[in-house]
Amino acid sequence: MSDDRGGEEALIRAIRALAGSAGDGVRVGIGDDCAVLEPAPGLALLATTDLLLEDVHFRRRWAEPADIGWKALAVNLSDIAAMGGRPRWALVALACPEGTTAAEIAAFYEGALAITRAHGVAIVGGDTSSSPDGWLVNVTVLGDAVAPRLRSTARPGDVVAVTGALGRSAAGLAVLECDRPPAGVADDDVAQVTGAHRRPHPRVSEAQWLAQAGGVTAMMDLSDGLGLDLPRLLAESGAGALVDVEHVPMDAATRAVAAALGADPLAWATGGGEDYELLLTCEPAAFERLQRGLGDIGARLTAIGEVTAGATGMRWSAGGREVTVARGFEHFAARPAPSGARP
Amino acid sequence: MSDDRGGEEALIRAIRALAGSAGDGVRVGIGDDCAVLEPAPGLALLATTDLLLEDVHFRRRWAEPADIGWKALAVNLSDIAAMGGRPRWALVALACPEGTTAAEIAAFYEGALAITRAHGVAIVGGDTSSSPDGWLVNVTVLGDAVAPRLRSTARPGDVVAVTGALGRSAAGLAVLECDRPPAGVADDDVAQVTGAHRRPHPRVSEAQWLAQAGGVTAMMDLSDGLGLDLPRLLAESGAGALVDVEHVPMDAATRAVAAALGADPLAWATGGGEDYELLLTCEPAAFERLQRGLGDIGARLTAIGEVTAGATGMRWSAGGREVTVARGFEHFAARPAPSGARP
Repeated sequence: MSDDRGGEEALIRAIRALAGSAGDGVRVGIGDDCAVLEPAPGLALLATTDLLLEDVHFRRRWAEPADIGWKALAVNLSDIAAMGGRPRWALVALACPEGTTAAEIAAFYEGALAITRAHGVAIVGGDTSSSPDGWLVNVTVLGDAVAPRLRSTARPGDVVAVTGALGRSAAGLAVLECDRPPAGVADDDVAQVTGAHRRPHPRVSEAQWLAQAGGVTAMMDLSDGLGLDLPRLLAESGAGALVDVEHVPMDAATRAVAAALGADPLAWATGGGEDYELLLTCEPAAFERLQRGLGDIGARLTAIGEVTAGATGMRWSAGGREVTVARGFEHFAARPAPSGARP
Repeated sequence: MSDDRGGEEALIRAIRALAGSAGDGVRVGIGDDCAVLEPAPGLALLATTDLLLEDVHFRRRWAEPADIGWKALAVNLSDIAAMGGRPRWALVALACPEGTTAAEIAAFYEGALAITRAHGVAIVGGDTSSSPDGWLVNVTVLGDAVAPRLRSTARPGDVVAVTGALGRSAAGLAVLECDRPPAGVADDDVAQVTGAHRRPHPRVSEAQWLAQAGGVTAMMDLSDGLGLDLPRLLAESGAGALVDVEHVPMDAATRAVAAALGADPLAWATGGGEDYELLLTCEPAAFERLQRGLGDIGARLTAIGEVTAGATGMRWSAGGREVTVARGFEHFAARPAPSGARP
């Protein structure tokens, strides 16, 4: 895209303005993780779609067809998770260049089915096409939710929290983009971060638990990095936030890879994207209960900041003073390397 | 795709086999125009997705962004129409190359909104991405239906019928692929066929009327040409058909363009694809009533053949003797020109 376009945010605003008011049977339209539709009174149907392109979102040099199939589903399941929903059905459109073999296409679907089966999701349709240049995949996932968690309902005073550890996917991408594995890093650390990038695990069951536990006021998934995604949630909620960079959770594998590559792990954690962890706000009184409950099902919840009054956006602090950190990446910006490569 | 793959039919069979049985809440999975889902007991939700790629499905030389937006929605609305459903919501994923302007993207959405508004459909979500090479669009449309018409329910003795005229889109593509307009054809004829290719009009209201009129036993839309699509319907129904080529409806504009280009209009009508007319089977006693009813809402219905017993596929006759005609095109086959360019 040309730079006069002004970034993905501006584009989405323009599309929302063009598309106009929500329409019949639309509870939430453009602008949240999923559309929330009402095919029958009281029934919340979630719908989300994501496009993955070779050399924008992955490289065939390091992504096997099965990895592409897994990830194309995973990123959509994560959008359903972001609302605390139950993913149910998927539509998979695939285009491959000439020379692609039947075995490669079968491997793609095996990867897709490995993750859909794990989540009880059925692949119910799709499309196939030849591609003039590279693999491309579009997946749509439909789900349902009793009470969808939105981005627009954070309130001043809420705790800002994230699941898991951040920056793993960006660390993995940094390794995959190297010509050879970084020296001095344990094989297991390398496998952990590259696995996080190639085959992310969306927080579906964790999000369902959180949505029904009470006290979660807003939720989304971290696809483009905390520095881009939290401002989106805040803009929808008309609020600000102060986040302490020293509380942003990072794991040992990410730190080890960063040390070996001479990179800043915090920049990966705040701006790397594709972690597919949950970002949520909750009532302060609920935080410890939510943290314990998630711990019981094997996931970590970390408080990283506080929602503040007024649409003041996101501010960062470290040791009590305000700082600036990497903002995140935008899929729609022009760049030579795959998305996620600009931490 | 490499040729050992064996075409789109074989691929879809392989995907169906991999995806396995339909799963919870799935009334119809892979293999019909739409998936038929049951988000609540008794509620039929239709879901369909289609991918359109530059230089596979359209060329920027003759397709404006607004045309691309229109057509990407139209082909999906046609899939909902194929089941007699009511389209309700659309998700639009768009990727454009560097240098695309905000005005071009706005024009794309204006084209998409022109057809969605005409059908009461809301665009409720989507995705945006940069593309390394050319425009690409994926659209998913959701709808509902009281009693979805399937491909699998044609019965021996049924009449085979089509709406409108066939071959118009292929005629339009042939003109668009010429360096200059064909000599000796009226401007209006040229505009009619190129319009049919660039901005097809899916038969949504006609299909809804047909689905509730009684007597229609099976239905689908004609996206890949009668010679490919009718065999698909017959395979799902376990039946055969005998079609009289002399009854295949063609209009004057298509014939005029064919004459000017020295092409065979029948090959366009049977193998050209992208007409987005309805192909249906009906009880013989119902045909005249259906034809009159459709006529009342401005659409033609033409009987072209008869369903025969046994899974014997499709046979063609002309003047009482069996003949062979162009089979249709497959989107997934390797080819240099856009789909539809091989009538």
